Parts: sequence; structure tokens; C-alpha cells
Amino acid sequence: MLPDKVKQELLRIVGEHNYQDSYTHKLVYSYDATPQFQSMPDAVVAPNNTDEISQIVKICNHYKIPLVPRGSGTNLSAGTTPLEGGIVLLLKNMNKILEIDEENLTITTQPGVITQEIINQVEERGLFYPPDPGSLKVSQIGGNINENSGGLRGLKYGVTRDYVLGLEAVLPNGDIIRTGGKLAKDVAGYDLTRLLVGSEGTLGIITEATLKLLPLPQTKKTALALFEDIQMAAEAVSAIIAHKIIPATLEFLDQPTIKVVEDFSKVGLPTHAKAVLLIEQDGDPHKVEKDIHDISSICKENQAFDVTIAQTNEEAEALTTARRAALSALSRLKPTTILEDATVPRSEIANMVKAINTIAKKYNLNICTFGHAGDGNLHPTCLTDVRNEAEIERVEKAFEEIFMKAIELGGTITGEHGVGAMKSPYLHLKLGDTGLNAMKQLKFALDPNQIMNPGKMFINHNQKRVVINREYAGES
Amino acid sequence: MLPDKVKQELLRIVGEHNYQDSYTHKLVYSYDATPQFQSMPDAVVAPNNTDEISQIVKICNHYKIPLVPRGSGTNLSAGTTPLEGGIVLLLKNMNKILEIDEENLTITTQPGVITQEIINQVEERGLFYPPDPGSLKVSQIGGNINENSGGLRGLKYGVTRDYVLGLEAVLPNGDIIRTGGKLAKDVAGYDLTRLLVGSEGTLGIITEATLKLLPLPQTKKTALALFEDIQMAAEAVSAIIAHKIIPATLEFLDQPTIKVVEDFSKVGLPTHAKAVLLIEQDGDPHKVEKDIHDISSICKENQAFDVTIAQTNEEAEALTTARRAALSALSRLKPTTILEDATVPRSEIANMVKAINTIAKKYNLNICTFGHAGDGNLHPTCLTDVRNEAEIERVEKAFEEIFMKAIELGGTITGEHGVGAMKSPYLHLKLGDTGLNAMKQLKFALDPNQIMNPGKMFINHNQKRVVINREYAGES
Repeated sequence: MLPDKVKQELLRIVGEHNYQDSYTHKLVYSYDATPQFQSMPDAVVAPNNTDEISQIVKICNHYKIPLVPRGSGTNLSAGTTPLEGGIVLLLKNMNKILEIDEENLTITTQPGVITQEIINQVEERGLFYPPDPGSLKVSQIGGNINENSGGLRGLKYGVTRDYVLGLEAVLPNGDIIRTGGKLAKDVAGYDLTRLLVGSEGTLGIITEATLKLLPLPQTKKTALALFEDIQMAAEAVSAIIAHKIIPATLEFLDQPTIKVVEDFSKVGLPTHAKAVLLIEQDGDPHKVEKDIHDISSICKENQAFDVTIAQTNEEAEALTTARRAALSALSRLKPTTILEDATVPRSEIANMVKAINTIAKKYNLNICTFGHAGDGNLHPTCLTDVRNEAEIERVEKAFEEIFMKAIELGGTITGEHGVGAMKSPYLHLKLGDTGLNAMKQLKFALDPNQIMNPGKMFINHNQKRVVINREYAGES
Repeated sequence: MLPDKVKQELLRIVGEHNYQDSYTHKLVYSYDATPQFQSMPDAVVAPNNTDEISQIVKICNHYKIPLVPRGSGTNLSAGTTPLEGGIVLLLKNMNKILEIDEENLTITTQPGVITQEIINQVEERGLFYPPDPGSLKVSQIGGNINENSGGLRGLKYGVTRDYVLGLEAVLPNGDIIRTGGKLAKDVAGYDLTRLLVGSEGTLGIITEATLKLLPLPQTKKTALALFEDIQMAAEAVSAIIAHKIIPATLEFLDQPTIKVVEDFSKVGLPTHAKAVLLIEQDGDPHKVEKDIHDISSICKENQAFDVTIAQTNEEAEALTTARRAALSALSRLKPTTILEDATVPRSEIANMVKAINTIAKKYNLNICTFGHAGDGNLHPTCLTDVRNEAEIERVEKAFEEIFMKAIELGGTITGEHGVGAMKSPYLHLKLGDTGLNAMKQLKFALDPNQIMNPGKMFINHNQKRVVINREYAGES
């Protein structure tokens, strides 16, 4: 429970309407989109501006109260569960697009704006914000920045990090900083902008962002290539890139995923194919036409038994929507869906998919795999049931093996979902002791009292899963 | 002077051939390409591998001896002058390209490789490494990474930071870390890769880098647009971008620069024009043709009195080379050339150029301005003489005003040259106390003894300009 003094202070800062500590409210914010992680906060606050956030942070820092900034909670790494209690801080009241600057090709936004709204607003002006995480219809841009979200267009256009030009943020001591600006080039000091991007709310609270925009590509085309073998699909991916073509999207679905998605979306996906590549190219019409033609030939040379090019925008949209529905479709099958994002160099995709299948068999698990083949970012997805403890234990072992395999192949434990609480036990696999130590030094330097989203990124062995009441170190 | 014990240790680690402490050697490494900064190191070492560097760093950390990593010393911010003595560490022995991976579109290189060599090697394979700092013929890639170098292609392709996928580095405690990898997506922990990029050797020594490559654009075209007025040139820049065209290069030269460059390069630059835009577009031939045609029309609509499109590669190359020669050409005129890189949002270029001219007049100085108009990164260049103390004092005042104006216009004190020692007095203008404080916290966390390139980035008021002998805190 929060000290009464703290509660009174918070009420004073945000007003009654934006402070909640009823059981229902706390329950709602005790979990995010990640299965198996839940913990009650002590209060939920929704500040209205940066100054209020700074005041809240100072109070939390003084009383050493955990503070968990939260967008829409769509992350899949238990990044926004209040594992050590404290305050869940919602950005929903800071939901305004502040400016779209067509001359400098930037958008400046508050963190609580829905990603889709940003995309809609800029596309109306013929501009383009490429990062497109699966959750974009509900996720908040602040969450995307905190998680450095990826998406389907990462291969050609990069990820959220590549579009953040400047930030305003409140640091764990309550200081308000501004980084970067409407600038393509800025080397005035360390890159705090990119240190904050992907820091999962452990270094501060992002209160405003200036994002880079591109001209909207003039046109796009979508193709679907069917393979009798995963290996052939992976070889086609490498061959496309080796041909010096960088498609906007190059997605992979294995047969189990295809079947489930088709059953869900009914767009006519070929359930007899062992692997499918969904390929999209965008840009100048002449170049798009040529690229899609070349990609089609390359797929056929790599033994695709069929390549279809969508003839209309509607056909193309249906295919992309079907791919975007993969997680929703898979999650209908079993009570619990655990979606991972082990990532490898593009050249290792076939090896990684094979390893995933071998590991699934070894642990007798149902794992479907889909993902962003072009950037080696795979989503092995386990359909399971948290109530089946024996199976969950096997799931954990299987994923640990999958992470180790990814590292062995030169990859990483997470390509776009973040470490959060879920993958903190595995972070040392990627970083080693020296890398992990360096990151902890940075964290402790900025947040000596460890108030910002504690228990995330760095494993906390004292972490308890479900806690209802807490007492905080006296009101010194 | 180094304690004898330290000298013996260094000799043991790198061998006699790679340890120098003669007056001549120390003099050579007492300055870099930046005028007005000089200070003698105590020794110059050239290690052969990462392990040797780790050993050297550990010794320096133990004895609190300053360590200044140095590539070719082409930086313009006094980033590699040993202002507090100690050891200049050369990376010249670590000069191998380790791998070009055509499947994953990456190059892995040691830090001592010349940038031009990387460009040559990848272009031979039809690949492309876009960052092209002015010094690329002599600069080392490790230096480019430490400075987050920009170049002429920043507008369309970004800067060095955008191409660094992974690093090996030795931290100030001697720990060796590896960050990132051949991965388009990696969110396993904080972005140490980009924290190190542009950290100017103050956080560690980069010992290996994996860089992202692109397919080499199929073709390019170059145009030259002449204006009677700087304002019109600036408006043309904005109009091109507003037209949703992002040229590969969009360079600006004012009349004084044009005259000097033409006198130097004799490529037929129009010395009667008040301002010139040098525009290059690359990519698919069809798109390039269309873009250059559109750009040409837009320039004419914005009152360019002449637009020429280079008809041959040789003609185009001559124009780009002339632009690249701007600094060399200007530096022939006076004993001292001070080149700055105040940067503003693209929409503020005309205002910035006007302000520079007003400030130059106010202080009675000869300042020519050229630079990367597309990304707002201007190079006001003062032709002066360090021996003229009264003038140099005016130069310093003028540049301070220029930096303040850049900040006022939403810009930054340095777009691509770095802070180093030269701009450390102005860093607070951009960051404010809170931002500067956060950066210092990061620095102290990783380098509590402040051995890594001290006196750079953060101003040290005790800094002395020329020091010959030093004593180090006892051999504890």
C-alpha cells in the first residue's frame, strides 16, 4: 500500500479523476499482453502533462516507490506488469499529435497517441511512418518507442529507433530532458535519444517524441510464393537479397501457421504448402513492377511451386491482413499462446526453423513458426495452457533451447519484443557478463533507487509473481 | 612522464616497435586536424589486437593515465588531442577487413581500415556503404564510428550511426564487450551500439565493427542549380523536399565559397552566382531520370537562373569532387581555417545563412558558408590567422553567436564534427543542465577514473593548452 502522504500528493498532482486505487482498477493493470505474469500495483495514475510526470517521479524517487509507465500494454515480454507493485503510470491523457511538419518531414507527438492514428494522419498528407508493429491498431507510440518496436517493414525501412529524431523525457530523478530535434544530423554528446528508445521504461518516461517521416511510396505490389519445403523458402529469401533487391516486406509462414490463419481469415491461403513467403515491394511504379517480376522469377528458380501476384489492392490487403492475423488466429486454438521472437542473421533462417521444429518435437510441444524472414526475426509460437504445469515446464525448457540456438547462430534472444521480465533470465546469453555489467552500470547511474520499472530487463531473483499488499520504506 | 613501470608494461604488451616516446613521435600526435589545440602525449602505442588493448586499458585505469584513441586524426573538434597527456593509442595495426557477407549485407572490419578502402571493397561487389565524410580518403572507419561521421549523402541515407549493426569494444575497466550483430532487429537490452557510436572515445575503444550495407544504386545523376540569392536557393531546397523527393545529395555553396573552389578546382563553377545547389540523385534509372527532371523544374520555379544536368559521369564526378574540395580550397587562402558545423532544421537554412553573414559582418570576419543543405548541416568557415590574437578573439565570439543562433532555430551546435574539446564549452547550450548532467552520469558510471579521452565532450576548466611533462598519481 502507498503511504497516505504519497496518495494525497498524487491526488493533488493529477486530480481525483486521474488517480485510481480500487481493486478493480488495480486488477486491470496487474497484467499486460504477456501470459503468466501478474502482479498488483498499488495505484494507477494518469498524468496530464510532463510537469505532472516530473512531480510524480520525484515523489516516487523520494519514497523509493516503483513506477511502471504503460501505454496500451500490448507488449509480449511482461514489460509493463508492476512486478514490484508501486504505481502504474498511464500516458492516455497525453494523446495529442502536436505537429506534422511537412517541410522538415517530421511529426511531433505526445506518447499516448495510437500508432495507427499517426500512420493515418501522415498518410493523408502523402507522408509515411514505416514502423508497423503487429499491435499498431491499439498500441501507443510511446510504448513503441520504449520497446523499439519492429514490424513487417523492418527489412527495408528499419525499426522505431530509426525514426526517432528527438525526445522529451523525465529521468528517474525527475529532471526533464530534451534530446535531438528536427535534425537529420546531431552529434552534440551521447545519443541519449537512442539510449532511451528500447529502454523499456527503465531509464525514464518519454513525454514527447519527434519522429522522422518519409515520402509515402507511390505504389506497392504483393506476391505470395508457395514452397514444398522450408529450406527452399529460406533459400529464396537469401537469393532475393543476394540479387540486391530489398523488399518492403518478406514474411514467412510455416504450414501449421498457414492452416490456422486460413481457417481464421478465409482469404484462400494454400494450406497444402509447407512454407509460404509473403512479399511486398513499394516505391516507384516502374521499379516495383521490375522487382516483383524479378522476385517471382527468383522464387521459381528456388523451387517455389507457385507464385501469385495480387492483382488488386484489395487482394494485396487481404494477404497482408491475413499475415497480421497470425497471432490472433493461433491464439484461438489453445488457452495460452506464447509468442517468441528469437532472431538470427537472415542467412540462418532455415537452420533456425529446423532447430525450432526439432526442439518442439523433443519437448512434445505444438510450436508454429512465422515471422519476418527478411530480417531473420522469427516468431516461434507455442500453443499451450498455463494450467498444465508439466507442459509449461517443457515450454520454458524449449524456449531456453531456442534462445541458445539463436545465439549460437549469431542471433539474439529478442528481435522486437523486448526483454521485460519474461526474457531477463536469458539476457546474459546475448550480452555475457561484461555487457550485462555495463548495462547495469548505466541503469544504476541514472536510477540509483531503481524506481523505474524494476524487475524488467535485469533479472531480480527476489521477484514474486503475485503480491497484493506492500509496505514502503518509511516516509523519510 | 609515464611511470617507468607503466612504460615497461606497455613495451611488454605491444613490443618495442609499437611503443614510441621520442619527442618527434609525441609532437606528431600532439595535435589533430583542429587548429589551436595542441598538447603533448607521454607515449604513443599501437596495439595489434583487442586483447592487447584490454591490457593497456587496465594498466591506464589502474594508474589513472589518460588514454586517447586515435584514427587518422582528421576530426575538426580537437577530439583526438591528448589535452591531459597520457597515451595516444593508434589503431593503425588493426587494419583488416574481416568479412564481407553478401548474404546478410554486412561488412565486418577492424577499426584501422581507411573508409575509402571499405567503400572500394564493397562497391566492387555491387554493394554500398553510404556514409561519406569529407575525409574518407584518409579517415579510419573506427574514427568515423567514434565521431558518428556524416557526409554528403546524409539526407537520403543517414549517417554512420545508421550503419553500425554491432561492435566489439574495450570499456574503461578493460572489459571486452560485443554488441548487436548481423541483425536488422535486436532489442536485447540498452542500445550500447549507438551509445558508443559518436561517443568520441570517451566511453571505450572500438575494436571491431559490423556495418550494414545496401545494394549499390544502379545509377546516379548530378545537377547544378544557380541562384541570384541565398533565400531562393534555400526555398528551392524546401520545395524539393515538399515535393516528396529525397535526393542523395543536396549541397549548398555560397558565392565566396564558389569563387575559391573554382579558383582551386577549375571545373567551371559559375562564380557569378550568389548561391549554388549541387544535387545528386541515385537509384533506379527511371526514377533518377524523373527526379532530376522534377528537381530541375522546381529549382527553376524557385528562380534558379540556370540549371545544368551533368551529361557524363566525368562531368558529374568533377562537380562532386569540386564540392569535396571546398575545405582544401578555402584553407589555401589564410594560415588558419576554422570550419564549423552548426546545424538547423532544413526549413531554417536561409535564416541561418543570413544570421551567419550578419554575425561575420558584425565581427568583421571572412566567413564562407557551404554545406549539406538537405539536412540543414551548414559549414560556416572562417578564414583567419591564429597569430592574430585580436581577430581570433572575435572569431570565438562570432562562433558562439552562431551556435546560439542555431539552437534558437531548433538546431544543434554540431551536426557531424563532434564536440571534442573545441565545442565542449557550448554543449550546455544544446543540452541544458539536465541533459548535460545525465550524460556525465553515464560517463562516470562507465569511466569512474575518467581515463578515456579526458577533457573531451565535457569541459574541463583546469585544462591547459600546452603541457610537456606530467607526473601521475603514484604507482599504487
